[in-house]
Amino acid sequence: MSLLVVGSVAYDGVETPHGKVERMLGGAGTYIALAASHFSQVRLVGVVGDDFEPEDEQLLAAHGVDLEGLEKRPGKTFFWSGVYSADMNERETLTTQLNVFADFDPQLPPSYRDSPYAVIGNIHPKLQKQVRDQMKSPLFVGGDTMNFWIEGTPLELAAAIRQWDFILINDGEARELTGEHNLRNAAKKILEMGPHTVVIKRGEYGAILFRPEGHFIAPGFLLETVFDPTGAGDSFAGGFMGYLAEQEIESLDSATHEHLRKAMIYGSVMGSFCCEEFGVGRLRTLTRDDIEARYREFKAFTEF
Amino acid sequence: MSLLVVGSVAYDGVETPHGKVERMLGGAGTYIALAASHFSQVRLVGVVGDDFEPEDEQLLAAHGVDLEGLEKRPGKTFFWSGVYSADMNERETLTTQLNVFADFDPQLPPSYRDSPYAVIGNIHPKLQKQVRDQMKSPLFVGGDTMNFWIEGTPLELAAAIRQWDFILINDGEARELTGEHNLRNAAKKILEMGPHTVVIKRGEYGAILFRPEGHFIAPGFLLETVFDPTGAGDSFAGGFMGYLAEQEIESLDSATHEHLRKAMIYGSVMGSFCCEEFGVGRLRTLTRDDIEARYREFKAFTEF
Repeated sequence: MSLLVVGSVAYDGVETPHGKVERMLGGAGTYIALAASHFSQVRLVGVVGDDFEPEDEQLLAAHGVDLEGLEKRPGKTFFWSGVYSADMNERETLTTQLNVFADFDPQLPPSYRDSPYAVIGNIHPKLQKQVRDQMKSPLFVGGDTMNFWIEGTPLELAAAIRQWDFILINDGEARELTGEHNLRNAAKKILEMGPHTVVIKRGEYGAILFRPEGHFIAPGFLLETVFDPTGAGDSFAGGFMGYLAEQEIESLDSATHEHLRKAMIYGSVMGSFCCEEFGVGRLRTLTRDDIEARYREFKAFTEF
Repeated sequence: MSLLVVGSVAYDGVETPHGKVERMLGGAGTYIALAASHFSQVRLVGVVGDDFEPEDEQLLAAHGVDLEGLEKRPGKTFFWSGVYSADMNERETLTTQLNVFADFDPQLPPSYRDSPYAVIGNIHPKLQKQVRDQMKSPLFVGGDTMNFWIEGTPLELAAAIRQWDFILINDGEARELTGEHNLRNAAKKILEMGPHTVVIKRGEYGAILFRPEGHFIAPGFLLETVFDPTGAGDSFAGGFMGYLAEQEIESLDSATHEHLRKAMIYGSVMGSFCCEEFGVGRLRTLTRDDIEARYREFKAFTEF
């Protein structure tokens, strides 16, 4: 069934110890959509400028991504650039040019409003709420956020989160959102804010799924070379929700634990592939066989 | 079968955000021995001063630890004290009084020399080699080390490691020992230094077992409260080797993958229990039922 993805579609400039790319397709919406497209039909809502390359539009379309919701406006596409530290655990932002993204006002085309599933990328929580409000009785909706909104717009963020079934958040943000250093306690508090499913991302260490009845730990994949970690968290989100949408889960209560756990692993698989090349390079060449082979690797190095 | 444990037996003063203890039983040898004693018979080699409390000796004896190799010398027992940061990820050493430990010269009683298994705690690599040289055709021997020896006595350390079947090392130390940031590459290099089994400990994130044919990732247990992380790595070592000794593995080649993976989980179980109380508090009250229950928890939150 269809998965609605809302988020930035951008150009990125990235420098890592493995090289430098001046300008390439990026943005949370792009990573989520491309990763999810390997599992289910995706409907994308975003905004780009008139500099958006036809080949990038074609790339998305070739992955079956519905682009009716990708608005094209006069002006330039959101541009971000950054440089990673030698161990790639830190990155410094060099440029943030919001351009047409500054006035992003996500409007769901009528054909998108019955989407049963949605991942709402990291945008202003007021807009995140606006997206959710436009959806007709969805089955499973959630999103991502970041420190900037936790600190700057806590009330709007609380209002957005309250409507979500799941939240994807990294460990530092979970601690900041709740004031709890311990992840188990932080997750417990977030479960009281609305979502019945909390996914805490831990970068190279993997991710944890928290539900009222218990948790599941997915380790990070040990890559021999991390080329570019940009978009790994968003690719995780795409794999996670893409897989759940593919299973056509009716609601989270009816989704078996098995589905959720598998979704965590498919998310981890997509996040790991994302790091293997610059930008969306690996997400565009990937086949379902590659994905299933890595899924089996996860099984092999975790089973006891 | 019997497991030989060599390492410090000490008194520790510890301050964490949960409280402060001025003086309590500690030391790597103590933690390894007590953790392993829940699985197999342990023979301890260490040195204490004449201030060593009879009740501490009784505690070890009550856990079936053979103390023939625990030398008592005139003078004071090794004393260490430290304070943990608020998030407990860092600790500052306040006092290190080596006392009788300064002249530790590990001699295996004749009855210990046929021990088939050994964990050699973090002592001078010259002494680690001396211990190994006193053993008669052991089946599975290894140990721990630290930055101090990696930096200060690299040649002696290489000579000690060359004789080992396994090494336990934390991620930072593995990087320092090999000059490789990537853990997969670091482990590959360590596997060329002698050991056929490398366990890289990652603190709260768990541990990874590397073998020439592949790896296994054990996640860290999510404790709701970490009271005192002192000794967690040594308790891991005790659980890991205690379990392998209990299985009476003949050599690592004949030990199934299943045994090694289970040993990683039992190590993780013992490390997690260790953090639940100050010092060895939890290791002394623990039952095999508690251990098996937590082992099942590990299975429950990792299976997919």
